[in-house]
Amino acid sequence: MSTGPLLHFTPKEGFLNDPNGLVQSNGLWHLFFQWNPTALEAGNQHWGHAISRNLYNWNHLPTALFPNEDGGLIFSGSAVVDKHNTSGLFKDSHGRIPTNTEGRIVLIYTTHYDDLETQNIAYSPDGGITFIKYENNPVININESQFRDPKVFWHEETKHWVMVVALAQKLRIAIFRSSNLKNWEKVSEFGPAGLLGIQYECPDLFRLPIENTEDHRWIMVVSINPGSHINGGSMIQYFIGDFDGITFTPIDKIARIFDYGSDFYAAQTFSNVPNNQVISIGWANNWSYASDVPAKQYRGIMSCPRELSLRSMPVNSEAQELVLVQRPYNTEALKHPLSEPYPLALETVSEFPPTSICGTRFYLCATIPVSATDSEKLEFMRLRWSATSDVLGNKQYIELGYRFSDGAVYIDRGSSEASWKNPMYSERSISNLPAILIDDKMMVDFGILMDQSVVEVYGNHGGKVFTNTYHFSEGSEDSPLKYYYLALPRAAKLVKANVLPLFTKVPK
Amino acid sequence: MSTGPLLHFTPKEGFLNDPNGLVQSNGLWHLFFQWNPTALEAGNQHWGHAISRNLYNWNHLPTALFPNEDGGLIFSGSAVVDKHNTSGLFKDSHGRIPTNTEGRIVLIYTTHYDDLETQNIAYSPDGGITFIKYENNPVININESQFRDPKVFWHEETKHWVMVVALAQKLRIAIFRSSNLKNWEKVSEFGPAGLLGIQYECPDLFRLPIENTEDHRWIMVVSINPGSHINGGSMIQYFIGDFDGITFTPIDKIARIFDYGSDFYAAQTFSNVPNNQVISIGWANNWSYASDVPAKQYRGIMSCPRELSLRSMPVNSEAQELVLVQRPYNTEALKHPLSEPYPLALETVSEFPPTSICGTRFYLCATIPVSATDSEKLEFMRLRWSATSDVLGNKQYIELGYRFSDGAVYIDRGSSEASWKNPMYSERSISNLPAILIDDKMMVDFGILMDQSVVEVYGNHGGKVFTNTYHFSEGSEDSPLKYYYLALPRAAKLVKANVLPLFTKVPK
Repeated sequence: MSTGPLLHFTPKEGFLNDPNGLVQSNGLWHLFFQWNPTALEAGNQHWGHAISRNLYNWNHLPTALFPNEDGGLIFSGSAVVDKHNTSGLFKDSHGRIPTNTEGRIVLIYTTHYDDLETQNIAYSPDGGITFIKYENNPVININESQFRDPKVFWHEETKHWVMVVALAQKLRIAIFRSSNLKNWEKVSEFGPAGLLGIQYECPDLFRLPIENTEDHRWIMVVSINPGSHINGGSMIQYFIGDFDGITFTPIDKIARIFDYGSDFYAAQTFSNVPNNQVISIGWANNWSYASDVPAKQYRGIMSCPRELSLRSMPVNSEAQELVLVQRPYNTEALKHPLSEPYPLALETVSEFPPTSICGTRFYLCATIPVSATDSEKLEFMRLRWSATSDVLGNKQYIELGYRFSDGAVYIDRGSSEASWKNPMYSERSISNLPAILIDDKMMVDFGILMDQSVVEVYGNHGGKVFTNTYHFSEGSEDSPLKYYYLALPRAAKLVKANVLPLFTKVPK
Repeated sequence: MSTGPLLHFTPKEGFLNDPNGLVQSNGLWHLFFQWNPTALEAGNQHWGHAISRNLYNWNHLPTALFPNEDGGLIFSGSAVVDKHNTSGLFKDSHGRIPTNTEGRIVLIYTTHYDDLETQNIAYSPDGGITFIKYENNPVININESQFRDPKVFWHEETKHWVMVVALAQKLRIAIFRSSNLKNWEKVSEFGPAGLLGIQYECPDLFRLPIENTEDHRWIMVVSINPGSHINGGSMIQYFIGDFDGITFTPIDKIARIFDYGSDFYAAQTFSNVPNNQVISIGWANNWSYASDVPAKQYRGIMSCPRELSLRSMPVNSEAQELVLVQRPYNTEALKHPLSEPYPLALETVSEFPPTSICGTRFYLCATIPVSATDSEKLEFMRLRWSATSDVLGNKQYIELGYRFSDGAVYIDRGSSEASWKNPMYSERSISNLPAILIDDKMMVDFGILMDQSVVEVYGNHGGKVFTNTYHFSEGSEDSPLKYYYLALPRAAKLVKANVLPLFTKVPK
């Protein structure tokens, strides 16, 4: 049986989709998730639950939310720590409020019926292990059948809880506010905006610092599915703006894309994180083929946890725009202390050093200068990994291609069982990663996090990210990608392309 | 040698890119085009010229604009008929103004140097056959190196000529106005807006009627290259708004996509067309691989001429949005009178009737009901064409795939020489075409215009269009796609799927 990815969260069994209820509490990271424990496809939605001290090693906890007795399913939502007991839900059997204010976790979620979706809350009597559905649910019912995925946060300036929630088929994000998590007032709407698709889902709204400034902006995140240009299915767009507690106002007319790969959806940020750190996790999948990718015991994985910021980046030699920057959280902690980084060989089929723990899990860093000379040659970089030494012949491979002349880039996940079964599982994602100025030279920078069955490419120091899953035939899932081939244009000088072997299991 | 497409314009030789100077004059359609007569790739840019009475049969005319003696190249631009001689350019050697006001064609174009781009004009002394560059060019010089592609039209309400022109690397569209085509005043800017990419090019701005209303809106068209999500290269987005002669104001925050295929760029509308008809032609190619597609004598083709309108269309069961609708111009004129439409066979490899003129050039109409039952089965329609009877085995094929459950759609152009040579030439375009209400049933509708080396899919009566070129190995270019295979889910009843054989050459 496959070991599966180790640095990326998966359920023990069943079908996983959206991350839910991301919250830090008492130093622990809580990850809830859309979960069907009884089948390998969506349906019978529960909230699964896991906790971690480092965002990489997860301990599974008991199911947090079960479907209602009347058949209502538990769709996506979020979590907050109600430190000041604004909800009044945190009283013990003696009427006393538990002293550990950090443990007062409230979940806010959608209950789904075929003809109705409502917003509901649940609270933990034991600091985040078990949850009790609020007796007067729903807390919001506006008689809508497509009304879901509440994300709630505390807005300090106006001293209110704020909820963004999707009116999915109206292509609008509704904004509600509340002083107690129970009584909600609708205060504004945002959208349609940017790309349309067929439905908007899983909104998020959060404040981000702008790198190297004292300034910040608000980010409105809108997931689109189905009908996006990415495999006809799922993608995420975002908008940069200001938020006054009532209304989100974009600062420009730009529709920005969160992740350019095939597999990144429904991303949500953690609440209650100290020091204004903003950490996000998405579902590394695409509804266009999520039910058809190979699976045995479980199906569906989360992206790597990512630290977010805003950066003013060059779009070309004349224009700068603010861009969401994503970096894998605390990669230093992932590196195996016994393995030194080592450089990649050129133009030969090579094997990762047998002494390394490398092969299925590594972080590869490459920074490559793009000279004007190279630029005119339409030359490519190709970096391909395979489980067998027949790297260039084996149909099961991962390949990154980059064209120096115009920044065109692709990630090819080879020929796989998933592509045989579902024609919307495209083998190749093509986009663009322009060179940027690094150390006074035009350079392109790649950080590639590979963890058996998912590859995340963090281009230009996280300024443009591509997340693609890959699914070889079932028999080969355990084979590490320990062979590689790297071709670079002759004129391009490789500044560094080091492989950093990662722990197969992060030490606790 | 390949006969090439016959219903789509190509040059006789050399490299063709953007359509330029589209104008109707004295009942003739003029098509100018970016043209390198001396090589099969961009460079040494001229304006080629052709005329037509029906937009399908073209007569080549002498080169309209040659590079300047100082090396300045002639980049893209537009044409107007200066009926009232506002420019004062139309005087004969006796100082008299020629009586044929319809023949007073002025071209507005960019002169390109490595470090400077300016706007310039040229006029015809002979009703549109030859052109003289204005002696006091440039008419606009703002010392910009990335400032090009002027599109000019007459704005009747303010009695001014209006120019939209790209500040390509500032990702802005500048708006200028003039009373005489010689003296221009900058009045506003639009952008960045919608999707970013690396450069904005080839803007257009025009008024469109909204179907079934007395109302209209203005459309701002912005081509993006490089850096779009379509093969990392070229695409077109558009915005719907109002225009008062000075400022374009979008009516919403939506970034709409002009064409969802791999090959549609730099589209421009014809000026001086009677009855407010709006006809557009784009370049059916993508800069990401335009220099690498197979070619012998020439490289580059135009899209089919398309009649444009605005329609309020359902996005899903709750939302309606205005959408640009595109229909091939006057398809009735293309149909061969001796060939009857005939239905496609199901589930067998079949040959188009040998008596038909079909095979490389046809218009296929299919309207298919999407019942709820089908919808739950994740079943596909596959329609594949091939030049050999081994339709399902031959690697050179065109296939349209459609999934009834969610509207996911793909166009696969098979394995070709172009894909071997350039990894950004993706074989499969994937998008989405939701079912719409037709005759009180949820239906999906396809109009497929196939003309040797290009396929245009007009989905949902033109509400969503996909343009893809295809390039089989050179030896097979002349082989008509006369075999096909159509698989439909059992439960889907085909209402109609007729093939309309088209003239190989439209009668004059």
